Amino acid sequence: MIYFDNSATTLIKPESVCRAFSGALCDYSANPGRSGHRLSVKTAEAVYSAREKICGFFGAGDPAKTVFTANCTQALNMVIKGILTPGDHCIVSSMEHNAVMRPLHAMSKRGVEYDAAPVMPGDASATAAAFESLIKPNTRLIVCTHASNVWGVRMPIERLGKMCRSRGILFAVDAAQSAGVLPINMRDMDIDFLCVAPHKGLYSPAGTGILLSNCDVGLATIIEGGTGTFSSSLEQPADMPERLESGTINTPGILACAAGVDFVKEMTTARIHSYEMSLIQRLYVELGNIDGVELYTDYPTEESSVAVLSFNINGLPSETAAEKLSDAGFAVRAGLHCAPAAHRHMGTEDNGAVRVSVSIYNSMSEIMQLVRKIEELSIKSKPA
Amino acid sequence: MIYFDNSATTLIKPESVCRAFSGALCDYSANPGRSGHRLSVKTAEAVYSAREKICGFFGAGDPAKTVFTANCTQALNMVIKGILTPGDHCIVSSMEHNAVMRPLHAMSKRGVEYDAAPVMPGDASATAAAFESLIKPNTRLIVCTHASNVWGVRMPIERLGKMCRSRGILFAVDAAQSAGVLPINMRDMDIDFLCVAPHKGLYSPAGTGILLSNCDVGLATIIEGGTGTFSSSLEQPADMPERLESGTINTPGILACAAGVDFVKEMTTARIHSYEMSLIQRLYVELGNIDGVELYTDYPTEESSVAVLSFNINGLPSETAAEKLSDAGFAVRAGLHCAPAAHRHMGTEDNGAVRVSVSIYNSMSEIMQLVRKIEELSIKSKPA
Repeated sequence: MIYFDNSATTLIKPESVCRAFSGALCDYSANPGRSGHRLSVKTAEAVYSAREKICGFFGAGDPAKTVFTANCTQALNMVIKGILTPGDHCIVSSMEHNAVMRPLHAMSKRGVEYDAAPVMPGDASATAAAFESLIKPNTRLIVCTHASNVWGVRMPIERLGKMCRSRGILFAVDAAQSAGVLPINMRDMDIDFLCVAPHKGLYSPAGTGILLSNCDVGLATIIEGGTGTFSSSLEQPADMPERLESGTINTPGILACAAGVDFVKEMTTARIHSYEMSLIQRLYVELGNIDGVELYTDYPTEESSVAVLSFNINGLPSETAAEKLSDAGFAVRAGLHCAPAAHRHMGTEDNGAVRVSVSIYNSMSEIMQLVRKIEELSIKSKPA
Repeated sequence: MIYFDNSATTLIKPESVCRAFSGALCDYSANPGRSGHRLSVKTAEAVYSAREKICGFFGAGDPAKTVFTANCTQALNMVIKGILTPGDHCIVSSMEHNAVMRPLHAMSKRGVEYDAAPVMPGDASATAAAFESLIKPNTRLIVCTHASNVWGVRMPIERLGKMCRSRGILFAVDAAQSAGVLPINMRDMDIDFLCVAPHKGLYSPAGTGILLSNCDVGLATIIEGGTGTFSSSLEQPADMPERLESGTINTPGILACAAGVDFVKEMTTARIHSYEMSLIQRLYVELGNIDGVELYTDYPTEESSVAVLSFNINGLPSETAAEKLSDAGFAVRAGLHCAPAAHRHMGTEDNGAVRVSVSIYNSMSEIMQLVRKIEELSIKSKPA
């Protein structure tokens, strides 16, 4: 099967990542931070090295504030619920994933307010101005995706970061679609909290998320438990990362993430992004030539987009089109992609769309095979 | 190094578990429940089979209510915070881990009350009576560990289950130390919620916990996000398991857990428990003969205990003793084991204790090597 569902998760993992993951079961199987014996200490040291590497890769200042979670969704919940209290106001973009919208909606029942700023694809100034116009005296946090998981549209993160810094507002970025693909430096980009899905652009296994913090604001906890530290106190410790890492952590997944970072560093995000965009640009051009294919976005450039493209075919239900493509050996995703807001933005909330998302393991030949299949599907499904 | 820290995590994982874990990166690397294409569906089916197997193993009724979490601590948080609301009362044992006590303490700041019932080791009636005497009209939940992670003491779970059923109280069991070692049937034992640490007795990798539910009570959520279902709604879906599984799940860890259950089923919990207890009983007898070793519990039988034994040596700080043992090649854990309540119960809250916990991969020869080392340590450290 030819796999084009890399925004859900990258299918193929590098050999070095697989080795780190499997090898952890033999070499780092003791519980880190729980005991003083050599095997536990050895595992704790390996985990700390992973923190240092990941912290450095994303330009954060303190490895202790690189926290491992179950997934990016949990990281986003920890930020949103860790910061906002009743009476606070939060601004998000109009293209957020449910990983942001559902926790915010839950918080809105507890007295948190929020607004969504309409994104103007391709117009960073207008998008930033939309955010700015929503700022209120009680605005405490802005949460924005780095790139839409439906439309690939990049957000003006640098501008939003500067704005937040100058206005004293905390800034959290959902990097689910960008970490490993776009350069991210939390310090330079004024990002306070970064939430990462390593199983996507860091080519790591599912089961680990990362929450990086580059500010001094402590988060209220949504999960408490044993940390191996200050055990005699019923209070969750303030020290990081223990404060946000209760219970046994995912050592194999964490060590695999570090190997994923090494892989991306060697490849460089610039080359990865450029290569992936060349595939998506080809797809965009070819689909534009097919009668009946509906594209919703402008021609995607490296500056404007990540390698995700959504479209529809002759008004076919997106699920039907994706099913036909699956039957023909192509893995794409249809529907709302857990981001109804992003679909509402483009008027596709009823039918959703067919999404193609690539990784470095895809090839131009695969793209052309897909194009021919979509062409065929388009002809067959043309209204009489 | 000879490893005796299996209550923190089992060090050695069976070949079949390693294979399932590593193999998932090749065979089940697509995102389950997110797309309709064949690779996603194939992964979703494998995950569902794992749910069915685990659900059946623990005697729960509905595989959809077998939920995968980051660890046992997260599962306990989800139960405690999912059930209790301000004004509710909860009862726990006097030997709970911080994975129970810290979330409860956090809830106590939001108007939840709780009491700890004093455990009477070896006297199930007295322990059950202690719980019963604390029941109030607003008691909504009892949370009890199945076996102490410090003293190995088994709790009268069957009695507590019956009592809860007859009093209309929900019953949650922390099976971190018992799952895979003691037989657990949620239906027969009247357990509503079971929290499991598969990386211990199910010989699975760290990074996955399990929350099984065998009742119709829906849990309020502490984490919301994309579920791949009902995407257009901002409300977290009520359907299980999606309600409690937001974001991408840990497929490799989940498939490894299923392999771990197969491993334990073939071995049988009866044989595992009996073998492990034979090692701990030998250790108890030998330590009892060493001048200066302080044991706190009665002789551990299969009925009274799991294979965990804690002690001190000549009043040495427990950390010092454990360090000396580590230097001599033995991995044991000292301190409070994230369970200060259990230590307070035995009067060891100041010094903690040295804990030895075994798995099926330990041998009698290893136990005897440890005994000889402790004997040596005891002679050397004897007060003049």
